[in-house]
Amino acid sequence: MTNVYVHGVGMTQFGTFVDRTMKDLLLDACIQALNEAGNPKVDAVYVGNFMGGSIYNQEILGAIVANELGLGFIPTAKVEGACASGGIAVRQGVLGIQSGEYETVLVAGVEKMKHASTADVTQAINAAMDNDSNEKRAGLTFPGFFGVLANRYFYETGASKKHLAMVALKNRENAMQNPLAQFRKPATLEEIMEARMITNPLGLFDCSPMTDGAAAIVLSSKKSPVHVRSSAQSSGPTQMQDADDLLSIPAIKESGRLAYEKAGVGPEDIDVVEIHDCFSMTEMLAIEELGFFAKREGWKAIEEGRTKVIGDKPVNTSGGLLSRGHPIGATGISQLYQLVHQLRGTAPNQVEGNPRLALAQNLGGTGSYSVVHILERV
Amino acid sequence: MTNVYVHGVGMTQFGTFVDRTMKDLLLDACIQALNEAGNPKVDAVYVGNFMGGSIYNQEILGAIVANELGLGFIPTAKVEGACASGGIAVRQGVLGIQSGEYETVLVAGVEKMKHASTADVTQAINAAMDNDSNEKRAGLTFPGFFGVLANRYFYETGASKKHLAMVALKNRENAMQNPLAQFRKPATLEEIMEARMITNPLGLFDCSPMTDGAAAIVLSSKKSPVHVRSSAQSSGPTQMQDADDLLSIPAIKESGRLAYEKAGVGPEDIDVVEIHDCFSMTEMLAIEELGFFAKREGWKAIEEGRTKVIGDKPVNTSGGLLSRGHPIGATGISQLYQLVHQLRGTAPNQVEGNPRLALAQNLGGTGSYSVVHILERV
Repeated sequence: MTNVYVHGVGMTQFGTFVDRTMKDLLLDACIQALNEAGNPKVDAVYVGNFMGGSIYNQEILGAIVANELGLGFIPTAKVEGACASGGIAVRQGVLGIQSGEYETVLVAGVEKMKHASTADVTQAINAAMDNDSNEKRAGLTFPGFFGVLANRYFYETGASKKHLAMVALKNRENAMQNPLAQFRKPATLEEIMEARMITNPLGLFDCSPMTDGAAAIVLSSKKSPVHVRSSAQSSGPTQMQDADDLLSIPAIKESGRLAYEKAGVGPEDIDVVEIHDCFSMTEMLAIEELGFFAKREGWKAIEEGRTKVIGDKPVNTSGGLLSRGHPIGATGISQLYQLVHQLRGTAPNQVEGNPRLALAQNLGGTGSYSVVHILERV
Repeated sequence: MTNVYVHGVGMTQFGTFVDRTMKDLLLDACIQALNEAGNPKVDAVYVGNFMGGSIYNQEILGAIVANELGLGFIPTAKVEGACASGGIAVRQGVLGIQSGEYETVLVAGVEKMKHASTADVTQAINAAMDNDSNEKRAGLTFPGFFGVLANRYFYETGASKKHLAMVALKNRENAMQNPLAQFRKPATLEEIMEARMITNPLGLFDCSPMTDGAAAIVLSSKKSPVHVRSSAQSSGPTQMQDADDLLSIPAIKESGRLAYEKAGVGPEDIDVVEIHDCFSMTEMLAIEELGFFAKREGWKAIEEGRTKVIGDKPVNTSGGLLSRGHPIGATGISQLYQLVHQLRGTAPNQVEGNPRLALAQNLGGTGSYSVVHILERV
């Protein structure tokens, strides 16, 4: 199997950029990544994006990147897998290189959301649920889904809303040190606990925001110091009613299991982690499903500060989706941006001890998709 | 390089299916293809789709297929490249198998358009133009674009509207024999020439319709009688103003050149062809760009009947986009459906002489994407 390496990463400021076009953000991240990679000949482009068609009337993002950057008449495509679009796009880049068709691939992700109303974005996001499901017809939304899971988690464990708030606080504190993060204003546990309720028990700080932003990564079979040790992806039930266990997200568990198996490592070997915390509750479940902590005991690890930058399993040192921001198509790639910097020793909230193995997990839908990439400093 | 073979194909009736959901169409085509393939273990699913998000509020099609068909927690994704979404999805399936990650991949394409107004569909299709271009801002549409090319073609050659009508008539006559085609009503050259004008000189019969439909294909590294001899893709300018020559679509030419090079064959070796005739004018240019006829002389070949089923280079024996229909994400895969049947000797409008090599070309945008697959009977 051909080895795949990271040659460059790029990322825009995440936030509200009403005056910047989606193309502008996308190209900005791409140019950064290409510059870092020494502007190599690029053989293909993949772009992760979710709602360019529905709320921005812009598709053909692959061709736009190739044309605007003068990359030549190379193959390009957009990849969609809801909020996992970015991670899945990276995986297509890895497979394209492993197929022997491409030596070097540019993968970018972008989303432009802040120009649209919350109602329009909510409607667009609901395209990540199955239209034919009773749940969608009944009006279930993503905060509603993860709110149900949170209540169930409280019921089955000793956890409470305070533990969710501790996740949100940790990620906010991390974001405060990340110059590219959307939310850098300090918050307190009390403020988070008392914030406006979105869906019981999830308050404003428990939910990832609408964000404009882009991120990019250059992958190549040529050797470099950061190796993509494994790439794994799984799907799972698209409806809550099909879950065997409300506190399990099979796509996360299975994508993690596969990624560890391929890499020949276990959760105990991972030095630094970026997880898909679309809600504080999602981070709680993901740290369990990925095997970092025992099932139904993630809340104890949170309470003990084990997922903090100074903990034994630092999670979301970028600030995560909750505070770095969640420009949907860009999210999976921005996770890798942070991890590449962690492995280089140049990250905001740099983890001590020269981390060698880093894991990114990107979720789509209510568990329809999960992608895990394990990066290694070589 | 791993060889990739076709194990099964499926396709729904193309037409107006207001009472069928997108999921229903999609699964119908998938089940047909899987049944034909003997219901193998599937390792990944790719779905080509363009406007599921914008006019149907349904994304996550990959996960929906895996879940509904009980394929397990396998990797899935949607692929978008405007009207080339289906062909690009097939290419991802080929690359996935060549990477060694997958043995068998299900690739499907679907579009649901007829429930929406023409205005909404036109708006959604315009997402395949660059928002930042003066052309899009000025109100250029796809019929407008190809209308300009047709007028230029008339100006530079001896062709006239009659030659476009001959393309449309040929494809209608082919569709009349294809039970899955959208338009099977006979038409005459006069009727086509005198039909309602859409954009001068393109009349109603020169423009592909809005269509509901789905198609699917099962690919595998296990040997079967139909071999994917080559897969090639290119991008090209996203704006008319960037064209060096209005009568050249570089993505088509380059994807063809690459496909021939990889297959070690030339245009003269191809026995039967499906081309992306989104407009009659597009077929005229594509038969030249793919090297079947000399530049600016395609109209003579049309006049001589050389692209008819009984001609020396049969093009669009299915009826093409113009009359078989153009459910965008499904189109590239429906081309392969027809060609697989041609190679098996079971196609409507079966070409005589046991065709051995077949070529499909799928276009996206005004030339932003082109994918070519060459299939071989082995």
